[in-house]
Amino acid sequence: MLNEEMVGLGKVRSEIREIFEYGNKRKQEIGAENVFDFSIGNPSVPAPVSVNEAIRDIVDNTDSVMLHGYTSAQGDFSVRKTIAENINSKFNTEVNADSIYMTVGAAASLTITLKAIMNPGEECIVFTPFFPEYGVFIKSSGANLKVVKGLDKTFQIDIDAFEKAISEKTKAVIINSPNNPSGVVYTEETIIKLCDIMRTKEKEFGHEIYLISDEPYRELVYDDTFVPYLINYYDNTFVCYSYSKALSLPGERIGYIVVSNKMKNERDAYAAVCGAGRVLGYVCAPSLFQRVVARCVNDTADISIYKKNRDVLFNGLTELGFECVYPDGAFYLFVKALEEDAHAFCEKAKEQELLLVPADSFGTPGYVRVSYCVQTETIEKSLAAFKKLAESYK
Amino acid sequence: MLNEEMVGLGKVRSEIREIFEYGNKRKQEIGAENVFDFSIGNPSVPAPVSVNEAIRDIVDNTDSVMLHGYTSAQGDFSVRKTIAENINSKFNTEVNADSIYMTVGAAASLTITLKAIMNPGEECIVFTPFFPEYGVFIKSSGANLKVVKGLDKTFQIDIDAFEKAISEKTKAVIINSPNNPSGVVYTEETIIKLCDIMRTKEKEFGHEIYLISDEPYRELVYDDTFVPYLINYYDNTFVCYSYSKALSLPGERIGYIVVSNKMKNERDAYAAVCGAGRVLGYVCAPSLFQRVVARCVNDTADISIYKKNRDVLFNGLTELGFECVYPDGAFYLFVKALEEDAHAFCEKAKEQELLLVPADSFGTPGYVRVSYCVQTETIEKSLAAFKKLAESYK
Repeated sequence: MLNEEMVGLGKVRSEIREIFEYGNKRKQEIGAENVFDFSIGNPSVPAPVSVNEAIRDIVDNTDSVMLHGYTSAQGDFSVRKTIAENINSKFNTEVNADSIYMTVGAAASLTITLKAIMNPGEECIVFTPFFPEYGVFIKSSGANLKVVKGLDKTFQIDIDAFEKAISEKTKAVIINSPNNPSGVVYTEETIIKLCDIMRTKEKEFGHEIYLISDEPYRELVYDDTFVPYLINYYDNTFVCYSYSKALSLPGERIGYIVVSNKMKNERDAYAAVCGAGRVLGYVCAPSLFQRVVARCVNDTADISIYKKNRDVLFNGLTELGFECVYPDGAFYLFVKALEEDAHAFCEKAKEQELLLVPADSFGTPGYVRVSYCVQTETIEKSLAAFKKLAESYK
Repeated sequence: MLNEEMVGLGKVRSEIREIFEYGNKRKQEIGAENVFDFSIGNPSVPAPVSVNEAIRDIVDNTDSVMLHGYTSAQGDFSVRKTIAENINSKFNTEVNADSIYMTVGAAASLTITLKAIMNPGEECIVFTPFFPEYGVFIKSSGANLKVVKGLDKTFQIDIDAFEKAISEKTKAVIINSPNNPSGVVYTEETIIKLCDIMRTKEKEFGHEIYLISDEPYRELVYDDTFVPYLINYYDNTFVCYSYSKALSLPGERIGYIVVSNKMKNERDAYAAVCGAGRVLGYVCAPSLFQRVVARCVNDTADISIYKKNRDVLFNGLTELGFECVYPDGAFYLFVKALEEDAHAFCEKAKEQELLLVPADSFGTPGYVRVSYCVQTETIEKSLAAFKKLAESYK
């Protein structure tokens, strides 16, 4: 007699969390240093010192009623202005404070954006591999998920498959670059082709097709890899951002939506975002952390540690003969399992105390995700275990 | 081609906010000291000093990755344990950490609870006067709002009307005591009668009817008024709480849901809350403020200021001949307009620089809400303006 769908969603524990909790148990049994836990995407690098400095300074020097009071639903104006100006200086855009809607993190950015644009029966396209919660969020908006397989090995977007999949029902396309779980950054060439098709299809079908850029990993890129800013490539774009990874603040739940200033009917689109935030129960984003991220708008956690981890892990596993997707960003390595069934492979990895995530739920059976947001030493020590795992398949 | 319902909800500005913004404009024109702004329910008393002390201490003495990292979706275990123990010591209940689900404030508590229990076509009963967003949240859960008029003058629940309104379609009942906008606290006698009827009807209809207690104003009560803790009166109860008013933290968005440990299938109900939180995009409640409220679990902002304000305002307006509902709690005075049309009355009040909120949207035409979360001096000075307003009707 409850809402049975919600009961079901609450009871099905995330596979990733199951592995993570198995890891915690195992660490108690044999010592944390003997477990190689690559299961969870929780930043391992502390927030930059500027974050805690900003917290102290704001708390010490702001009137309490003002500091902890409601901001406007879309967020404090000066915070939004600071963020808009920062985006413009980085990406040569022309967004403004009223293009920005502050949110309680990336998941909120996505649920609000989807609720703002989707209607029942419409479709939202995602590309494999993709974050499994997209399915939950799209369904919750009343719309349907449509999955397009990524290209083999590179996991770039399969443009031909996309062109075949897009239909009159398509209302939105989500891209996530740098990608969780593959670490892949979509090339500018890929983005240009994708946007060209979307524009053509908008004309053909006579309605908007929105591009939703889910980009919490935007700052986690290595070797000067170029990440196209989608507002510069496609007018009907919503950017869903979170400070969880860039500032190592996942628990504080702070992010924003950018409604492109070049969007058709952009004032209506912004109003729909406000309406969706209201309907879902988001009154405003946390007021202290709105001010903190505005202060730290040019800072990031020490990304160089993730780059070092990537190099050690990618080089180490490649040398051992594993087939790995080269990750230009995020903190995940996508590795082909040594047997068809990635679940069975992960079980075998457990025998070597290696905790990996089978990628079936990301839409890519046969692969595993290795989260390298861990201590570098853990990666170095784990290579012997990976070696044994590889040998067990010979 | 957007979701037009969301566009509409985003464009219709809240009437309260319109008045508030008119007030800001007017203050610039004639000076803040000459405008009597009783429009908005934003706490005027600072957070207790323990809040900022807790923030500093936690930031200085907690590892950054731990402090700002994800907590479990339902909230940090030790935070939930502290809150559960505090509830048990205050109300003689037996809830536990796994009865508590931390939320991003009261609106989130409500949207999550409604989504967890309501199915399309079912009804949720509310009593006038009621917070207008209930209608938005109930509709968003797929269910229908059913309004039962409160008793004249006292604005207690009309038990006979409730008994007639409850039907096979009734799945939930929301009560809000201390009440926004009337300031009324429902008596224990009222609560007992309400719960008796609900139990009888549960048996008659053969399904659960849930009681949702929306109680952000619980601590804002005066003269030792008794506020029944509903878990002690009715097993199928969800308590939706927020620290916004008690700790003067409305912008920080922190609260919780209690799923009564005595609820039938309470593990399923808790799972449904977790599922609903997931679907709506709430990953976890803000991690720093989870820890802050656990530290301040026995503190409140200085409520005595609101009591003083209530006395000055209630006595002053009653002496002037206004018909006022005596408020035992919250920070609102509910006043009968001096003409049938409360909107016209509020326009006339504006001529005296008095900013009041017509209560039509609360389901009670002919009344106005006067928010006394302002400086006491503002109230004292406003009485001359109220006098002129009354005289203009003679």
